[in-house]
Amino acid sequence: MGQRLIYAEENMINKLNEKIKKTGAPIVVGLDPMLKYVPEFIRKQAFAEYGETLEGAAEAVWQYNKGIVDAVYDLIPAVKPQIAMYEQFGIPGMAAFKKTVDYCKEKDLVVIGDIKRGDIGSTSEAYAVGHLGKVQVGSNSYCGFDEDFATVNPYLGSDGVKPFMKVCKEEKKGIFVLVKTSNPSSGEFQDRLIDGKPLYEIVGEQVNAWGAECMPESGNYSYVGAVVGATYPEQGKLLRKVMPHTLILVPGYGAQGGKGADLVHFFNEDGLGAIINSSRGIIAAYQQEQYAHFGEKGYADASRAAVLAMREDIAQALNCR
Amino acid sequence: MGQRLIYAEENMINKLNEKIKKTGAPIVVGLDPMLKYVPEFIRKQAFAEYGETLEGAAEAVWQYNKGIVDAVYDLIPAVKPQIAMYEQFGIPGMAAFKKTVDYCKEKDLVVIGDIKRGDIGSTSEAYAVGHLGKVQVGSNSYCGFDEDFATVNPYLGSDGVKPFMKVCKEEKKGIFVLVKTSNPSSGEFQDRLIDGKPLYEIVGEQVNAWGAECMPESGNYSYVGAVVGATYPEQGKLLRKVMPHTLILVPGYGAQGGKGADLVHFFNEDGLGAIINSSRGIIAAYQQEQYAHFGEKGYADASRAAVLAMREDIAQALNCR
Repeated sequence: MGQRLIYAEENMINKLNEKIKKTGAPIVVGLDPMLKYVPEFIRKQAFAEYGETLEGAAEAVWQYNKGIVDAVYDLIPAVKPQIAMYEQFGIPGMAAFKKTVDYCKEKDLVVIGDIKRGDIGSTSEAYAVGHLGKVQVGSNSYCGFDEDFATVNPYLGSDGVKPFMKVCKEEKKGIFVLVKTSNPSSGEFQDRLIDGKPLYEIVGEQVNAWGAECMPESGNYSYVGAVVGATYPEQGKLLRKVMPHTLILVPGYGAQGGKGADLVHFFNEDGLGAIINSSRGIIAAYQQEQYAHFGEKGYADASRAAVLAMREDIAQALNCR
Repeated sequence: MGQRLIYAEENMINKLNEKIKKTGAPIVVGLDPMLKYVPEFIRKQAFAEYGETLEGAAEAVWQYNKGIVDAVYDLIPAVKPQIAMYEQFGIPGMAAFKKTVDYCKEKDLVVIGDIKRGDIGSTSEAYAVGHLGKVQVGSNSYCGFDEDFATVNPYLGSDGVKPFMKVCKEEKKGIFVLVKTSNPSSGEFQDRLIDGKPLYEIVGEQVNAWGAECMPESGNYSYVGAVVGATYPEQGKLLRKVMPHTLILVPGYGAQGGKGADLVHFFNEDGLGAIINSSRGIIAAYQQEQYAHFGEKGYADASRAAVLAMREDIAQALNCR
C-alpha cells in the first residue's frame, strides 16, 4: 500500500498539489530533448548501437531523459515531456515518449503530456482516450500513452474541451487549457479586445466555468488547469483573479526570459495555484556558462543544480511579496 | 519518369489543384477509422492474428483503410487521415497512420495529415519537420511521418505558424490553418467580435497575409490553405472574399449536416478554391441505409458509390450557381 495507491483514489490535481507542498518546489521540468542538447557521449553510444537512425536518435533522447530524471526526481513534483520533440523522430520517437512517460510514473512523478491537442467531438475524445484514458479493443482496454495531464488548445470551443473533461472525470486526471501563451506573437489573436476584454480573458473565464464542473471530491483546485506564460506577468495577475480555483501551468521561465519576480502574481495566497515550467534551463543546464564546470558527463548533476537554483529563486520571490 | 517526378518539381498545392481538375472531384476522403466502422470480418481476421490488442486494432484499421483506398483512389485527388483516430491506439496506431500515409502516396494521392498541431518556435518546427520535412540524425536525414499537407491551429499566432511555412517552403508542401471550424460550439471564441469583425475573419485576414508570403512559382493558390466548415456557408462566403488565393479545406459535409448547395460559395469563379472533406459518409457508407445493400463484405464498393454520389452532388450544386 504505497503512496501511489493512496493517491490513486483521488484526482491527479490533488496528488500534484500534495507533491508541490511536499517538495516545496512548484516546478515542472520540461523534458523537451533536442539532439543538440544531448551530450556527445550519449549520442555516440546510441548511434554505435542503432546507427544514425531514428531508432538511434530515440535511444539517445531516452538515455538523456533517464539521466536527468534519475538526478532530479526527488526534488520535483512533475515533468512535462513536449511530444513534438519526440514526434519529429517518427514512430521510434513516439516510443521514446511513451518510455519516458512510463519511467517518470515509476519514479512517482506526475506527468504532464505537453501535446496541445484539440479537435471536436469523437476526435477530441480519441485524443483524450489515447493520452489520458483507455481505448477499448474487443473485450480488452489499453492505455495508449497514459500521461496524468495533457495540454489542450481551446480554439474550437467546448466541443473540443468537453471530451477531455469527460475522460478526466472517469480517470481522475486533468488538463491544462492554453489561455495566454508565452511566445512574443501570442497577442496577435489572444490580446484582441472583445467587448473591451482581451480574448485571453474570455478564454480564462471559460476555463473557470469548465473548471467549476470539474472540482475533485476534496481540495480547492479544479482538474481543468490553464497555461499562462511567465513572460506576461500583468496578464497573469489578472488571470489569477479570473480563475481563482485553477492551477496555472506557467511556461517561459528561464530561457524564454521569465524571472522569479515575475511569477509571484501567478500564485494564490495559499502558496499554491501555479507550477512553473523550465525546459532548456534545466535539461541543458550543462551548456550554460554557470554550470559548464559540470562538463558533459555531469549533465544530470548540472540539471539538479539548476533545479535547486530555480527552487531558491521562486522561494525568494514568494517570500518577498 | 512518371507523373510523381514531374509533380515533385512543383509545390504540392499545384499537384492538388491539378488532381482536382483531372478527377473533377474537389473531394478529400477523411480516413478517420473508428473500430465500430470496421466490418466484423476485418476485425475478426486482425484479432485472430494479433489478439484483441493495440496491434490487432491497428491491423484492423490498416486493412480497412487499404480496402477503401483501393476502391476510391482513381476517383479522388486526396485523403485526410485524422491522426487522433490512430493515436488512440498508441504506438501501434501511429504505425498504422504512417502505413496509411505511405500507401496513399504510393497510390499517388495527396495526403493531408489532419493533425491540428500548433506550438511555438522550435517546438512548432519539430512538428513541421516530423510531419512534412526531414529530421537530421547525425549525417543522415529522415522523414518521420511524411504527409504532403498538415492542418495547423492558429491560436498561438505567427510564432506557431511560421515554422510550418518555413518547412513547407523547403519541402514544397503546404498547410491548412483552422479559421472557422465546423462544430456547433466553434462560435464560442471564433465568432466573438473584435473591432466589429468576428475573430475568424481576423484569422482569415492573417491566413491571407501568411499566404501572400507563400505563393508557389506558378499558379494562383498559396500553399497556406484554410479550414472553414461546410456547416457555416455564410461565413464561407465572406471568408472566400477575405482569402482569394487560399484553398479552403471544408469539413462538415455529409454526416455533420453540410449539403452540396451549402458549398458553392466556398469555390472561386475558376471552379477551384475549395476541397470538400467527407469522412464517415464515405468510409462507413455501408452502415447507411442507402448503401446497406453492399453488405459488410462490400464496404469498399459502398465507399466508391458514396464518392460518386458526392461528386455528383457537388457538380450539380456548382452547375446551378
